Amino acid sequence: MAEEIERKFLVKGDFKRSATHKVRITQGYLSSVRERTVRVRLRDDKGFLTIKGEAGDSGISRYEWEKEIPAAEAEELLALCEPGLIDKTRYLVPAGAFTFEVDEFYGDNEGLIIAEIELRSESDQFPKPDWLGEEVTGDLRYYNTMLIKNPFTGW
Amino acid sequence: MAEEIERKFLVKGDFKRSATHKVRITQGYLSSVRERTVRVRLRDDKGFLTIKGEAGDSGISRYEWEKEIPAAEAEELLALCEPGLIDKTRYLVPAGAFTFEVDEFYGDNEGLIIAEIELRSESDQFPKPDWLGEEVTGDLRYYNTMLIKNPFTGW
Repeated sequence: MAEEIERKFLVKGDFKRSATHKVRITQGYLSSVRERTVRVRLRDDKGFLTIKGEAGDSGISRYEWEKEIPAAEAEELLALCEPGLIDKTRYLVPAGAFTFEVDEFYGDNEGLIIAEIELRSESDQFPKPDWLGEEVTGDLRYYNTMLIKNPFTGW
Repeated sequence: MAEEIERKFLVKGDFKRSATHKVRITQGYLSSVRERTVRVRLRDDKGFLTIKGEAGDSGISRYEWEKEIPAAEAEELLALCEPGLIDKTRYLVPAGAFTFEVDEFYGDNEGLIIAEIELRSESDQFPKPDWLGEEVTGDLRYYNTMLIKNPFTGW
C-alpha cells in the first residue's frame, strides 16, 4: 500500500521560467466519490488508470494505486467516464531538492493554476519559491473531481 | 473495444455432475452505477480489475475492459470497495460447443445459483441442459452489483 503526501498551493507569479518539463494531461473519472476515486488519464501519448482512497483527516495522506495502460484503451475508458473532462498542461518546476508539479487548466477551468509538492512526511520542510501563493491543501473545491462538477470559471 | 453478449438463467437441477472446473471468487465494486462499473475480483490466487459500460437496450451487450493484477493488490483494492462483497464458487459446465459459467453464492446470497452463457451474437442458438431454469437476462436484481445492495436471502 503506497501513501502519498501532497500539499497544494495557488500560483501568483511566473513559474514557467523555472519549468524543466511539460506534459498535456486529459483526465476523467469512472468514480469521483470521496471514499474511492477511479481516474483515467492521458499524459501526452501514455495512458494511466489510478485508484485513490479517501484523504486522511489532515487532507494530506491517501492510498494510491496506479497502472500504465495503452493510450488507445485510456481513450476508450475516457469515453465511459462521468460527464466532463479535465484538460491541463502540467509543468515540472524544480526547487532545491524538491519538484513542484504546476497545473495550468484550460476549458471550463481556464485561469486556474495550482502547484503541488509531494513530501515524505507531513512535517517535511520544503522551499517556497516567490511565485507560490496561498496554500489550499484539503480545500475540496480544488480537487480535480470537484473542478469537473463545479468549474473555476463559474466561481 | 470488446463486446460481450451474455444470457443469464436460474438453475433448477444438479449441474455439478457436468462441471469440469471450479474457482472461488470474491469480488467488490469501486463503482456500481449502471453507466460504469469498476469491479475488483480475486479468482483463487489471481487478481483482476474489470470495467464495464452500461448494458444495451436488450440488456445483453456491454463494453468490457479487464486487466490481471497481483492478488495482493486486488486485496488492497477490495478493502477500498463499496460496503459488501460477493462470495461465490464458479463452476464451468460444458454443453455442446458452449460452456456455462454457474455461480453458487454464499453469505447473504446463500441459496442463489445463476448460470451464464457467452455468445458471439444475440441470435446465437445454444443447448439448454435439463438443469437450466428460467431466463433472467436483463433482470437488474440478479446483477452482482444489486446482490450486494439487496441480497437474495432478503427477497
